[in-house]
Amino acid sequence: MGGIPDSELLLPELLKKAGYTNKIVGKWHLGHRPQFHPLKHGFDEWFGSPNCHFGPYDNKVKPNIPVYRDWEMVGRFYEEFPINLKTGEANLTQIYLQEALEFIRTQHARQSPFFLYWAIDATHAPVYASRPFLGTSHRGRYGDAVREIDDSVGKILSLLQNLGISKNTFVFFTSDNGAALISAPKEGGSNGPFLCGKQTTFEGGMREPAIAWWPGHIAAGQVSRQLGSIMDLFTTSLSLAGLNPPSDRVIDGLNLLPTMLQGHVMDRPIFYYRGNTLMAVTLGQYKAHFWTWTNSWEEFRQGIDFCPGQNVSGVTTHSQEEHTKLPLIFHLGRDPGERFPFSFASDEYQDALSRITPVVQQHQMSLVPGQPQLNVCNQAVMNWAPPGCEKLGKCLTPPESVPEKCSWSH
Amino acid sequence: MGGIPDSELLLPELLKKAGYTNKIVGKWHLGHRPQFHPLKHGFDEWFGSPNCHFGPYDNKVKPNIPVYRDWEMVGRFYEEFPINLKTGEANLTQIYLQEALEFIRTQHARQSPFFLYWAIDATHAPVYASRPFLGTSHRGRYGDAVREIDDSVGKILSLLQNLGISKNTFVFFTSDNGAALISAPKEGGSNGPFLCGKQTTFEGGMREPAIAWWPGHIAAGQVSRQLGSIMDLFTTSLSLAGLNPPSDRVIDGLNLLPTMLQGHVMDRPIFYYRGNTLMAVTLGQYKAHFWTWTNSWEEFRQGIDFCPGQNVSGVTTHSQEEHTKLPLIFHLGRDPGERFPFSFASDEYQDALSRITPVVQQHQMSLVPGQPQLNVCNQAVMNWAPPGCEKLGKCLTPPESVPEKCSWSH
Repeated sequence: MGGIPDSELLLPELLKKAGYTNKIVGKWHLGHRPQFHPLKHGFDEWFGSPNCHFGPYDNKVKPNIPVYRDWEMVGRFYEEFPINLKTGEANLTQIYLQEALEFIRTQHARQSPFFLYWAIDATHAPVYASRPFLGTSHRGRYGDAVREIDDSVGKILSLLQNLGISKNTFVFFTSDNGAALISAPKEGGSNGPFLCGKQTTFEGGMREPAIAWWPGHIAAGQVSRQLGSIMDLFTTSLSLAGLNPPSDRVIDGLNLLPTMLQGHVMDRPIFYYRGNTLMAVTLGQYKAHFWTWTNSWEEFRQGIDFCPGQNVSGVTTHSQEEHTKLPLIFHLGRDPGERFPFSFASDEYQDALSRITPVVQQHQMSLVPGQPQLNVCNQAVMNWAPPGCEKLGKCLTPPESVPEKCSWSH
Repeated sequence: MGGIPDSELLLPELLKKAGYTNKIVGKWHLGHRPQFHPLKHGFDEWFGSPNCHFGPYDNKVKPNIPVYRDWEMVGRFYEEFPINLKTGEANLTQIYLQEALEFIRTQHARQSPFFLYWAIDATHAPVYASRPFLGTSHRGRYGDAVREIDDSVGKILSLLQNLGISKNTFVFFTSDNGAALISAPKEGGSNGPFLCGKQTTFEGGMREPAIAWWPGHIAAGQVSRQLGSIMDLFTTSLSLAGLNPPSDRVIDGLNLLPTMLQGHVMDRPIFYYRGNTLMAVTLGQYKAHFWTWTNSWEEFRQGIDFCPGQNVSGVTTHSQEEHTKLPLIFHLGRDPGERFPFSFASDEYQDALSRITPVVQQHQMSLVPGQPQLNVCNQAVMNWAPPGCEKLGKCLTPPESVPEKCSWSH
C-alpha cells in the first residue's frame, strides 16, 4: 500500500526547479496509488507501469498491471499490451524506445534541458523480446532481450549524436540488481565470477557494471575501480545541472564527476541491507559480512535457489547466521567470488576489522531510520480502477478492503 | 620416464624444412631425457626448463629442476635461478622476455623466418613476479604475474612493430588449461562463470580465451565463436607457412585461418579426455558428459578442491559416475556454468543426443590409441645429471634405479 513519502526529494523535483523537463519511461516502483504517482514527484511525463510485467492475472483475485501515459492508464499488460509467455514475444522495448526517442526530439526542439529515466524491464522474468530479436542470441531468450536493449541504447545514443547534443548530454547505464539466478537458465543472466544473485547481499546480488557516456568529457574506454552506488546518481546529476544537494538532510550519495572526469578514486564504504538488517559492508577491497543468509530452508526445498550450483560452507547459509561479533571478511580483489573468508587469527583479518569497525559504528550512530512503507498490504488497493479506467471501460471492482501485515518471504 | 616419441611430428620439425628457425622459451613438458629434448624435435634453440618451477627440493630425494640453454643445463631453479617463495619474487618472466626479444631481433637481422613458442609459467603455482610488478595488482600475486606477462607481451608486440614485421608475423595467445582453482585464492585465477577448474573436464578446466594478432590481416576487435583446440595451431601454422599437414596420418587440428581471416565458423566436435576415458564432448552449443568426476573423496577430504564454492548435484561428483547410456547434456550458451542439465525426457535432450551419438561413434571407431608414456616412473632418471652439469660442477648422484608403475591421483 505504501510508496514514496512527500518528504523524500527525488532528483526530478530538484531538476524541475532548474528548468529541466523530466520523463520516466518504464517501471516505477515507488508506489502505484495517486499520492505516489511519478508526476507527483517531479516527473512531467510517464509512460510505463507501476510494477514489472507480471501476469497474466484473472482480473478477479488480482488485476493485470496497468500501463500509464502520464496521469492515466492506457491499458494493461496482457490486454492492450500483449506479452506472449510461450514465445516470449512482446513489443514493449520497442514502445519504450519510441517514447525515449520522441521525448528527446521534442525537448531538443523546445531547447529544454531534459532528464530521461529509461527504466526498461525486458530482462526481468517473464523475459521478452520483439520478433526481430527472438532467437538471435546464443544465450536464449535472456540474450535476445539483452540484444534488443543494446540495440535500443544504440539508437538513443545515435539520436543524441544526430541531434548534435551528445557533448551536452550525460548518459549513465547500469542495473538495479545483479542477475536473478532464480530465473536461470531460461530467463536469468549470469553474475560471472560473483557469488549468488539478486535477493542476496553477496556480490552477485549487489554489484553491477556501470557505463558513463559523455563524448568530449569522459574519454572512451576508461575503467574506474571507484565503489559507487545508484544513490550517487542523485548527487552527480545535481552537480551536472549546476545544483547543490539539499542542505536540510544527510545525503548518502557522492558526486562521481571527479571520478569520471579526472579519474579520482574516493575511499568510501557501501552498506548492504536486507530490510533493517545491516548484512555486510564493503570498504576498499574488504567486505565484512555481519549476517549471512540466502533464503530459508523452506523456500530452498521448494526449488527456489538464489545461488544455483554455488555452495560456500558457512557463507551461503539457509538459516540467518549472525557474525556481528566476528564478521566473515573477504578480500574482493583476490577473492571476488567470496569463497575464502580470512582466518580470524590472521593479521589481515585483524587489520581489516580494525578499519571496518569504526566506519560501521559511525554509520550506525548517525543513521536515521525511515518510515517503513511495506508493512501493510491490502488487495483492495491494487490497480483495480486506476485513473483513466473509465474512458477505457476498464475499471474493475476491488474486493473488500482488508489491510494485513505484509508477508515477505525473503 | 616417458616423453614425445620420434614418430610424433611436431610443428617446428615441419617448419624447419621450410627454412624457419625455431625457439622454445620456457616450459617444455614432453620429456626431460635426452631423446625427448626439444632440439631433438625440431627446435633450434631452447631456454627454459623441462617442467614448471616446482621446488625447492633437497637435491637428495629429489633434484631441483634444471634450466637449459639449448642442449645443456645452465643452472637450477632456486639455485642459479632464484624464486623467493615467501615474497613471490623471481625474475624469470623478465629473463624469458629478453630471450624472446633477442631471438626476434636476431632472426630479423638474419632475415630468417622464425617460430617462437613462448611458454611462460609465472601464473603456475608457486606464482611469481619481478619486483616492479609485485604488489601492483588488486588481484594479489596472481594478478601481479598476469600484469607482468601482459607487459611482456606488449613489449614483444612493440618490437615486432618497431622492426616493421608486424604485418608479416602471426601471434597467437592462449592458455593450456583453465585456472587452477586448487591454488585459489592466493595463487589461482578465476574461471568467471565456468564450472570448476584445471584438472577437470568441466568448462572451467578446458575452455580458455584465445587472441590472434596479425595487423593488416585480422581486424582488431573481432570476436569468433568458433570452437577451437590448441591442436588447431599445428594445422593453422603450417597453412601460414604455406605447408600441408603430413598425409601419412590423421590430423585432428583444423586450419583456423578461414575463421580468423574470413569469419567462417565450422561445426566440429571437441572431445574431453581424462587419461583414456572420454569424459565429455562438445558439439555446437551442446555438451554431453559421459562420465563426471572432479577428484576423489579421499583427496577432497584432504582439502584439495577443484571446484571451490561450486557444487552442482550429480555433476561435480567425487566418485567416478558413468553416464555413457544417458549422458548429462547442457546448453553452453544458455547455461555456460553447466548447472542445469536437460531433463532426459525433454525434446531438446533427445534432439541433442541424436546429433551427438553418431559423432562420438565415428570418433571412437576411428580412434588409434597412442602408446602410453606416463605409466613407468623412476626417481633415478629425474634431472640428477643433465648434460652440462659437469661444466657447472652441478651433477648429482642418482639413487638406485627402481622403475615403478606411476601413481596419478587424479
